[in-house]
This record gives sequence, structure tokens and C-alpha cells, in this order.
Amino acid sequence: MGTPVPSTAPRLDRLQADLDRIAEFRDPEASGWTRRVFSPLDQQCREWVAQQMAAAGLDVRIDAAANVIGTRKGLARASAVVSGSHTDTVQGGGRFDGIIGVLGAIEVARCLEDSRAELARDFVVVDFLGEEPNDFGLSCVGSRAIAGSLDAEHLELKNAAGASLADALAAVGGDPAQIETARWEQGSAHSFVELHIEQGPVLEQAGVAIGVVSGIVGIRRLLATFEGRPDHAGTTPMRLRHDALCGASEAILAIERLAGGTGTAGGLPSESGGVATAGRIKVRPGALNVVPSESQLWAEVRSQDEAWLDDFAGELDATVAETARRRGLEIELRWLSRERPVLTSHSVSDLIKDAAKSLGFESMRIPSGAGHDAAHMARLSPVGMIFVPSRDGRSHCPEEWTDIEQIGKGVAVLAETIVRLCAQPDPSSSMR
Amino acid sequence: MGTPVPSTAPRLDRLQADLDRIAEFRDPEASGWTRRVFSPLDQQCREWVAQQMAAAGLDVRIDAAANVIGTRKGLARASAVVSGSHTDTVQGGGRFDGIIGVLGAIEVARCLEDSRAELARDFVVVDFLGEEPNDFGLSCVGSRAIAGSLDAEHLELKNAAGASLADALAAVGGDPAQIETARWEQGSAHSFVELHIEQGPVLEQAGVAIGVVSGIVGIRRLLATFEGRPDHAGTTPMRLRHDALCGASEAILAIERLAGGTGTAGGLPSESGGVATAGRIKVRPGALNVVPSESQLWAEVRSQDEAWLDDFAGELDATVAETARRRGLEIELRWLSRERPVLTSHSVSDLIKDAAKSLGFESMRIPSGAGHDAAHMARLSPVGMIFVPSRDGRSHCPEEWTDIEQIGKGVAVLAETIVRLCAQPDPSSSMR
Repeated sequence: MGTPVPSTAPRLDRLQADLDRIAEFRDPEASGWTRRVFSPLDQQCREWVAQQMAAAGLDVRIDAAANVIGTRKGLARASAVVSGSHTDTVQGGGRFDGIIGVLGAIEVARCLEDSRAELARDFVVVDFLGEEPNDFGLSCVGSRAIAGSLDAEHLELKNAAGASLADALAAVGGDPAQIETARWEQGSAHSFVELHIEQGPVLEQAGVAIGVVSGIVGIRRLLATFEGRPDHAGTTPMRLRHDALCGASEAILAIERLAGGTGTAGGLPSESGGVATAGRIKVRPGALNVVPSESQLWAEVRSQDEAWLDDFAGELDATVAETARRRGLEIELRWLSRERPVLTSHSVSDLIKDAAKSLGFESMRIPSGAGHDAAHMARLSPVGMIFVPSRDGRSHCPEEWTDIEQIGKGVAVLAETIVRLCAQPDPSSSMR
Repeated sequence: MGTPVPSTAPRLDRLQADLDRIAEFRDPEASGWTRRVFSPLDQQCREWVAQQMAAAGLDVRIDAAANVIGTRKGLARASAVVSGSHTDTVQGGGRFDGIIGVLGAIEVARCLEDSRAELARDFVVVDFLGEEPNDFGLSCVGSRAIAGSLDAEHLELKNAAGASLADALAAVGGDPAQIETARWEQGSAHSFVELHIEQGPVLEQAGVAIGVVSGIVGIRRLLATFEGRPDHAGTTPMRLRHDALCGASEAILAIERLAGGTGTAGGLPSESGGVATAGRIKVRPGALNVVPSESQLWAEVRSQDEAWLDDFAGELDATVAETARRRGLEIELRWLSRERPVLTSHSVSDLIKDAAKSLGFESMRIPSGAGHDAAHMARLSPVGMIFVPSRDGRSHCPEEWTDIEQIGKGVAVLAETIVRLCAQPDPSSSMR
């Protein structure tokens, strides 16, 4: 292993100024800090990100998936160390989720530039397009494309207005016809490290500055459709009804109960911290005097344990089949997506832990209950993730908060980790 | 009592032609036969209704509540016999609900004209504006105005677009500033008779042509609001959540259970045939990866028994309070409207029964599970209702159906009843 080249320490004033500036790309009509992918605001923001990358000495390009990619050339012809995250938000979101991973990596580039560091490997910063769920029902659009898992079927996904994901990509500077060119070759990335807020209460409650992520949960998304009969709500006796909303309500409570939810009993045994959430429902006809004839229910379930996810799906099937029989409803469960759990690399995680220790910060291993671009980048190279605490465990809401000092510690650990990774020999070269 | 003046029999060919014509006022974008109040289609339809009234020899006027009112003058200065219903539909509705009550009364007017009948009393036909629930959350707009129970507060009700009911009334030819002029004086109506489809399965299952309505259920409408916390659906442990959709689901199932619903146990004892329905729900933020933080649930409960409705409201309060405590949710129940049960007049009902008998049709007493304009007209005079069978008990849906022969029997009973009512002396005159 070569000797790490020191960089200057991250500057909190620059980070704070960037955080303040990016928070201004905010939909004034929406609650919180809303900057959804494919919106003009997100486009403006990403142009600003590209400018910051260039000012940090990076060569900037936009790929066919509209990812913003900045490269600092290394001295050797070797695989690249990659860092980044996303700058889009959920509706009514906050100022930190994803954002500190992009701004943090740019700050690392600035520190390298300030110290005139000469690293062996290329250092690549990515602002991945559209990590959050969007109207096409697909999260992590940009990192999927880079990892080679954005296929033609994905590009044909439609939003409510009937536009395709391909149309949306083209409108923000992507090139859906050439989407294959966004894919990185196997071996081109040496490692990927992502800095992110925890989005949960563990680090804050433990009083620990740095989380070294052990793995990223698998996520399965579900659309359940319930069909009953639109009878008159005044004249149809209760026992002759086929009420699609009552059926959906049983499923909502079953989803909660199977994951061991609040005030329920009888969930699946879980050591994986599995969670399940029904987040959206549509009911037709939606009139007060008509028995609901159709419900659509969207839900998701997450766990680090693939077997637990299988058990959950099986139990939910059985529960819903019983509801269908008893109520005389047609119920269909359609699994829309299935992201497998991803383990982070032991060697990258050890490096993060050592980097934290060398800077005097306590760290702890912690699972990630949220999906991240890192889960897709794991198809290309070993990945690691650095978490910083979220106040009160809140995220995806206006109350989302991490102190600038805590972010600074995360960026310092990121910088140290990147410098150390850049100094590692290639597995291939060590075999020479 | 004077001698009834015979009218000619209703003509099925005219009724069928009218039913066919009115079915053409149909939103081509919507399912079933959709002609919602305040839509341009409903306006066109009501202009056509006014033309049919005029052609049937009625003097037509539009009142300040945009009701279409046609009058056939009687020989005496006496209170009027009134009949009518509505021609608006629910979203995705059918071709008979309300419509046969308006077309039937117009056909009675035509029969009176054909036979040159000279009746003692005025005969008044009304196409009441907006009987069905609308975007302002108020049903029976026209009959409320005539009965004097449409107040200034109602006129300020807003739809989702922020327009007021007063605006909507003005746009369809009403005069909200002069709404008081729509109100009929006490004593101006002698009686009100409404022909309507049953909207339930009782007459069809009994094989009886004519239902003599014993009473109209009381209806209470409810908006329940659930407030929780929009936590991240991946990172928030199940037992730390405050999920507003799970809370609403418990309420939906409690509403069904309290009314003795399908596959449930523990409902309130009921001899009133009480029913309860949760028909509409909105959930925020509606993202798949955020725990629902807010739900709004609209429901209604109906019974002929006011005490049962009180019990229902009390039990639901207690159930929801328990949910709020256990889940850490803020739950508010707001009762939006409260229509008391209405009994029909014994004397009018007896007249309907006798009329049916004289025409050779079997009849039976039957409660009405649906609200009707007659419930509001009961503030002005004795009311009666005539039901004809609904195939398979369906209504408020495209499958709604009553054979033309069955409608014809209902119109014949309506005609005979009106002729007999017109021949009755005024209570006041009998006291002279």
C-alpha cells in the first residue's frame, strides 16, 4: 500500500455556503425543500452543481443518463475511486439527504486542489440523477444506468401524464437512445464511497459521530388492487357488500402487523429490523354514497435479510387470499420492484473506520434502512458508506437536520478514506 | 272529498323516448351515465326538461336555486299538489335514479293535458337542482332551498378549486343573493309525492311492483382527520411510528363493524337496518418511502332510528379515541351534516296504496335507505314516495336498471295518486 497523500481539512464555511445556496433551489409552492427529479428546479440545481465541480478543478461531463460527473485525473492508469450521491429530493423533503454526499465529495476535490495533492488514481465525483422515487415509479435512475441495470423496459415506464422515462431523460439533457454509453465497464471503478445522513435515530442516541454502514436493505415494492362492487351506500345491506376499501384496510393493517408494527401482535420473527409501509391509496369511485368498488394500494417492505422478505411476501399473499375469499373481492398483488440487500465491502468499511479513528472520531457499524445509489454501484466495485447523525432520526421532511460540525466530520472522514483508497494498489497490478 | 277526475293512462312510448333522450346528456369521458350538477351537460339537460314541461302544458319558471318548476293551474285557490325528483347523477351513475321521478311527473302532466282534466288544485312538477352529493359536500341543494333550509353558510361552501356554492348556483341560472325567494310559504303545498327507483333488492326479491315508502333514513356525514408523523419508511423502526393511514384503516373497519358489516362481529344491535360506509380517503404525503403523516377519511351512516345513529356516533368516538391513544395520533371526528330520519305521511301513503290497488298492482311498505328530495319537502307538507323495483338492487352505477313496464306502473300509480290528492279538500277549507 502506498503512503497516503494528505489533503487540507474540509472548510465548514464553504460547505455551509454550498448548503445555503442549494437550499435556494426550492419549489416555493411545495412544503419543505422540494426539488423533484425532472423538474426545472432540479435542472437548475444540477447546472449549479456542474459549475461547482468545474470550480473545484474537475473535468465535468453529462452522461446519457444525465448524471453530472466530475473527474480529477490521477497519475497512474488505474481504476478510479468514486464518490457522490444525489441532489434531488422527495416532495416536502429536507436539505441534507443526498445533498451532503455530493457537496461533501466536491469539498474533498477542493481540498485536494488546495493541497495540490497528486493521487495515483482518478477521483470521480457523481451527482446521480433521480435517486428518490419519481412519477415513473423508479428510484436511482442515474446509478442504475452507470451500473448497467437501467434497461429498455425501464425507459418505457410512463408517468400519470403518459410521458415515458425516456422522454423525461431526454428533456433534462440525457440521451435515452444511447443509454448504454452511460454504463461503466467492469474494472473501471476501484471503489465507491458515499457520505449520507443516517435518516434514523441510532447515531444520535448513541452519541457517535460516524456510522460505518454494514449493508443496505433490500426493498420490494408492491401494488395491491382490490375489486368489489359499487353498490348504493344507503340501500345495500351490510352483509351483501363487496367493499374494496374495507379489503384494502385489512391489507394495510396486515402489512404493519407482519413487520411487527405499533400496537400489533403476531409479526414475523425478525432479527433483520425489517419494516413495511403502506404509503399510498386510491379509491374509486370516491363518492360518499357509493360502496367503494376499487382500491389501489402501494406498499413497500425492507430488510437486510432476503429470507425474511420472502417470508413476508408469502404471509401477505395468504392473508390477502383469506380477505378476498371472505369478502368476495378480486385482489391482485403485483410486486413492482425487487432490490436485493447489499453488503458493503469489509475492506472499504475497515478503511472508513481507520480514517475516523485517525481523525479522533468515534465510529460504529450500522445498517442502512434506506436504499442508496451505493447499492447499485456495488455491481461495479466494492462500496462503503459513511453516515452522520440525523437529529431526532427525521428525514424526508422539512425537519431533517444535521449540524454543520457533524457534516464536517463526515466530509473529513470521506476525504481521508478517498486519499487512502487512491493510494491502494490495483488487485490486478498486485497480481502482476 | 271530491270525485277524482280520470286522466288517460301513461304512455310507455313517450316515457321510453324521454328516457332515451335524457340518457344522451352523458359525459363521454366518464363511465356509466354521468351528468353531475353544475356541469354544462346538466345545464343542457335541464333546459331540455324545461322544454318538455312547457310542451306538457306547464308554466315553467327557474327559481333562485335554479330549480326547474312547471305549474298546471287548478280551478280553485288552494294549496298545490307537488311531484318531482332530480335529473343530476353521481359520477359513473345510471339512467333511472331521480330521472323517472321527473319524467314520470311530466308524463302525468301530459296525461292530464290529453284528457283535458280539470283539477281543483295546482299541480306542480319540480326538477330539483343537485340532489346527489357534489363537490361542495351538500346534497339536495334545490329541495333544501324550496324548504327554506339552504342558508348563507351553505352558500359559502367551497369546492376543491375554491369556488363557492353561490358561484356555482349563479353560473347555472340561480340567484344566490335572492335565495330566500326560492323558499315556499308554509301552506302553499298540499302534499308532495315522489316516484323513484328502490335502489335496493327488496321489491324485486318479493316480486312486488309498487313500494309505498314508510320513511327515509337519517344520514350523518363525517370527516375524520388523522395526524401522525412523516418519518422515513426505511429507517424508522415499526414501534416508533405514528402512521396516519394505519389509524384510518382501523377506523374504516370499525365503521363497518359497528354497522354489522361483512365478516365482522360486534356491531350495534340494529332493527333499523342501519348502514355505514367509508367512501373516500386522502393520504399525505402519498410517497412510497414516507410513513403517512395525514389521512382524511369521509364516511356516512344511515338509519331510520335516530337513537341508533346516536349510539353509532358514540361508539365510533370511543373506538377512535382508543386508536389515537395507542398509536400516538391526533384524530378529529367532524360531523359535516345531520339529516334526521323522515316518516312519510300515513294519509298520502294510504292513498298510494289504494291507487295501486285500484290499478291492480300489488304494493308493500318499504323503508328508503337513500336520502331524497322528499325528505326536505316534508318540512312544507305531508309527503309520500312510490318505489319501483331495481334489478339486482343496483343503483348509482351503469348497471342500474328498471324495465319500462315497471316504470309505467309507477307512473300510473303516481298519476292516480295526484288526481286523488288534487281532489282532496284543504284542511283549512274543511274547517270553515
